[in-house]
Amino acid sequence: MLGRDASENGREKLRAVVMVSGGGTNLQAIIDGVKDGTITNTELVGVISNNRNAYALKRAEENGIPGLCVSPKDYETRAVFNEKLLEAVDGFQPDLVVLAGYLVVIPPEMIARYRNRMINIHPSLIPSFCGKGYYGLKVHEAALARGVKVVGATVHFVDEGTDTGPIILQKAVEVEQEDTPEVLQRRVMEQAEWKILPKAIDLIANGKVQVEENRTVILP
Amino acid sequence: MLGRDASENGREKLRAVVMVSGGGTNLQAIIDGVKDGTITNTELVGVISNNRNAYALKRAEENGIPGLCVSPKDYETRAVFNEKLLEAVDGFQPDLVVLAGYLVVIPPEMIARYRNRMINIHPSLIPSFCGKGYYGLKVHEAALARGVKVVGATVHFVDEGTDTGPIILQKAVEVEQEDTPEVLQRRVMEQAEWKILPKAIDLIANGKVQVEENRTVILP
Repeated sequence: MLGRDASENGREKLRAVVMVSGGGTNLQAIIDGVKDGTITNTELVGVISNNRNAYALKRAEENGIPGLCVSPKDYETRAVFNEKLLEAVDGFQPDLVVLAGYLVVIPPEMIARYRNRMINIHPSLIPSFCGKGYYGLKVHEAALARGVKVVGATVHFVDEGTDTGPIILQKAVEVEQEDTPEVLQRRVMEQAEWKILPKAIDLIANGKVQVEENRTVILP
Repeated sequence: MLGRDASENGREKLRAVVMVSGGGTNLQAIIDGVKDGTITNTELVGVISNNRNAYALKRAEENGIPGLCVSPKDYETRAVFNEKLLEAVDGFQPDLVVLAGYLVVIPPEMIARYRNRMINIHPSLIPSFCGKGYYGLKVHEAALARGVKVVGATVHFVDEGTDTGPIILQKAVEVEQEDTPEVLQRRVMEQAEWKILPKAIDLIANGKVQVEENRTVILP
């Protein structure tokens, strides 16, 4: 059970950290959502990228959100990177960690520490086209190769598995006859990801998401 | 490639046989579709059930469609049953075989003979919740156990695998918070199965469905 909302920790707003690897269009959707009131009771307190050149860091800067790069390349061992990453996340004192196109494996210590407080967006209707090897364009390539007519996206809490955690929101998107993986990827972003990720953050910020075993209950 | 429509075989209409095991609500949706013009260029020439007491046979009778029971229980070996089943199907000289809740394994000879001329309705968005062991209520129980928020149904051609053939149509359905497997099953039938199965038959009857490798192309 989550039930952590803005009032419970004595803070005015839920503190959210967004973790990204690339362009950060989902980060942009979150920034826009906070600005336009789709996401309420939420403060974006930090953006962490594993990639110094990620355009997402530029978006953070332009919007006055502290940005950090923590790259595995800067550390001799994965263990040290994991430690530094966790330090960086903890440093923001977040109530919620949002993986928004973050392509680095999350350290187990971090999964345990942020259980039911870390969410991920996946560009398919889980349990279709998810798990190891299904990320980015590969998801859409696999969907087109299978010839499915409906795809979508999923926001879920992060657990020890790959895309196995409790599902918060899903949205379906229709495949069109002439779709390429790139065209389909873009439509899934526009019609699903950029809608359900901000909505999930808003629900969590307002204490509307309960976790019961491996499922979520969305309160009215 | 299918491309078999009413004109190609010199017949006025596509001859469809429907195979069922139970109540036959999908059969009813097909009968209604033919009556109300949702399904065009199609004649329902026969209904085959493995179960003598299937209400589907009653529906066939009431609608003047020849009905047959071919049950594995009536034959000493599976091989003999398979032979008799194929004889029964062939006897109707169908252009299309529709599996509408038919729970008996289809003989390999029949799959080969009716390749790209035999379709099945499955109550999930394939490739989710499909394959061996996923049939009837089990599909919806699994979906609720996983906590998905979007489910649906799929019409596909039948190949040698379980639910692996080329997908013709899919339709998504939203899960609701208080759903039981039974409630969800009924909603998937009403909102998806009873719509896409008649629509798929109509598309096939009008030569609009092409199979290319393991995918379908729906012509405009």
